[in-house]
Amino acid sequence: MRLMRLGPAGAERPAVRSDDGTTYDLGGLTPDIDGAFLASGGADRVREELERGRLPELAAEGLRIGPPVARPAAVVCVGLNYTAHAAESGVEPPRDPVVFFKHPNTLAGPDDDVELPPGSARTDWEVELAAVIGRRAGRLASVDDALGHVAGYTIANDLSEREWQLERSGGQWSKGKCAPGFSPLGPWLLTADELPDPQGLGLRSRVNGEPRQDSSTADMIFTVAHQIWHLSQFMTLEPGDVLLTGTPEGVALSGRFPYLAPGDVVELEIDRLGRQRQRVVPGRPGPV
Amino acid sequence: MRLMRLGPAGAERPAVRSDDGTTYDLGGLTPDIDGAFLASGGADRVREELERGRLPELAAEGLRIGPPVARPAAVVCVGLNYTAHAAESGVEPPRDPVVFFKHPNTLAGPDDDVELPPGSARTDWEVELAAVIGRRAGRLASVDDALGHVAGYTIANDLSEREWQLERSGGQWSKGKCAPGFSPLGPWLLTADELPDPQGLGLRSRVNGEPRQDSSTADMIFTVAHQIWHLSQFMTLEPGDVLLTGTPEGVALSGRFPYLAPGDVVELEIDRLGRQRQRVVPGRPGPV
Repeated sequence: MRLMRLGPAGAERPAVRSDDGTTYDLGGLTPDIDGAFLASGGADRVREELERGRLPELAAEGLRIGPPVARPAAVVCVGLNYTAHAAESGVEPPRDPVVFFKHPNTLAGPDDDVELPPGSARTDWEVELAAVIGRRAGRLASVDDALGHVAGYTIANDLSEREWQLERSGGQWSKGKCAPGFSPLGPWLLTADELPDPQGLGLRSRVNGEPRQDSSTADMIFTVAHQIWHLSQFMTLEPGDVLLTGTPEGVALSGRFPYLAPGDVVELEIDRLGRQRQRVVPGRPGPV
Repeated sequence: MRLMRLGPAGAERPAVRSDDGTTYDLGGLTPDIDGAFLASGGADRVREELERGRLPELAAEGLRIGPPVARPAAVVCVGLNYTAHAAESGVEPPRDPVVFFKHPNTLAGPDDDVELPPGSARTDWEVELAAVIGRRAGRLASVDDALGHVAGYTIANDLSEREWQLERSGGQWSKGKCAPGFSPLGPWLLTADELPDPQGLGLRSRVNGEPRQDSSTADMIFTVAHQIWHLSQFMTLEPGDVLLTGTPEGVALSGRFPYLAPGDVVELEIDRLGRQRQRVVPGRPGPV
């Protein structure tokens, strides 16, 4: 199942898109797609209503697509999780997953414009597989338990301002990861029952139609299951939390490509999870 | 005014404590003390009701104290913000504020037991002044604008597992900052109108009655106003967000004191903001 949130930013309507591309309104079933909905068996209720043909259609044409989960308690990120990306970043592959956070207010729709922060010269793209937690995960006994805590999967662009992340940060990356709109998410949340193994997905990014990243989640250093099991030893992941699982090689930080500039178009795709397309626009100075 | 949340974890009731120590119930005014309440002038409504004598008393005796703000979108932390603490941590004082995040689900009441994570040998205390945001702060034009975005102040214990923070983290600190219960907050939120300048407050910690930290917020490298102005250039702070403003010297990481062990009692206090008292208990292994 493909769960979606459609409509203006801050007023998205919950929806589901069926295999034949019809969109159905979930507004009668839940006020939103969020941690409480996912933790309470919401996806099962949607499936049941869908199978019984009881959901009203929604005219999705022309509606903005929002991030497919609302108000996560946290956006947790694992960095340097592909060997070739660690190399292009000039560091050794990590022995343990490296974790940092993004402010959840950075979430944006998958096709929203990306605003370059005023003064930014080094804004970079990062296509990533995102896992959304469906069941609380704390101190899991085994890696084998981990994927049972995932509600579903989607695409994230872990946008990063490299000067802020690496040179003005004292080494803590979050400063370069939290500008407004820096976490496009979506277009849909593919429920985990349809993706029992998230490790064989191709993921790609392009800028102005030219290839940048082209890899597979099979190349992760730490699998999604390992990440969740590992993180759960150090923190409790909540339903609705978004886990960004790392980006493969092919970002501007490598020195092989220019950083983003106004007018650029960024496209990201992951097998079975659809595609994002963002136009880069100049940032507005002044209070936001 | 001293805003509080009283009652069992997850079911706290909003309250206000008057200067004479009487506690009044805010349940008729707001479902909770959270970002929406603070951003919508909630504190002004409480003040008005309080002055008119229209609030019912609440029998606070024996009630657990919860963190004074519910469900922040983010807990944002500035590290190494006192020169002597940077020195005891073995690093240079930073040129810019260093920022990292804690998972908001780490918030706990100021007197809740602190559970040592299973396997932890290096759990450390950190008394910190916490500022709670009352008005969205993004790209503020001037440091002088910053404190107008603060709803109030309280005490935080930024508990830290040093091995996880520094040795298993790849250098990103959040891994050692997010164990369950690792952010005791409270006992009350002193509204900002009663504390126009947060830079002259004594702050202290003790373990088993012996002094550990004893400093003043006047010793901060970056003032609270500077921190908020600076952070707002890189991210938007939301109403309800909790900003931890750094800890002074006197933590176990210095090598001068033992790390926390079961049976220890940690006390923290900041002038005008009250006192926290936590008993350290062994962590339970297994799923949480």
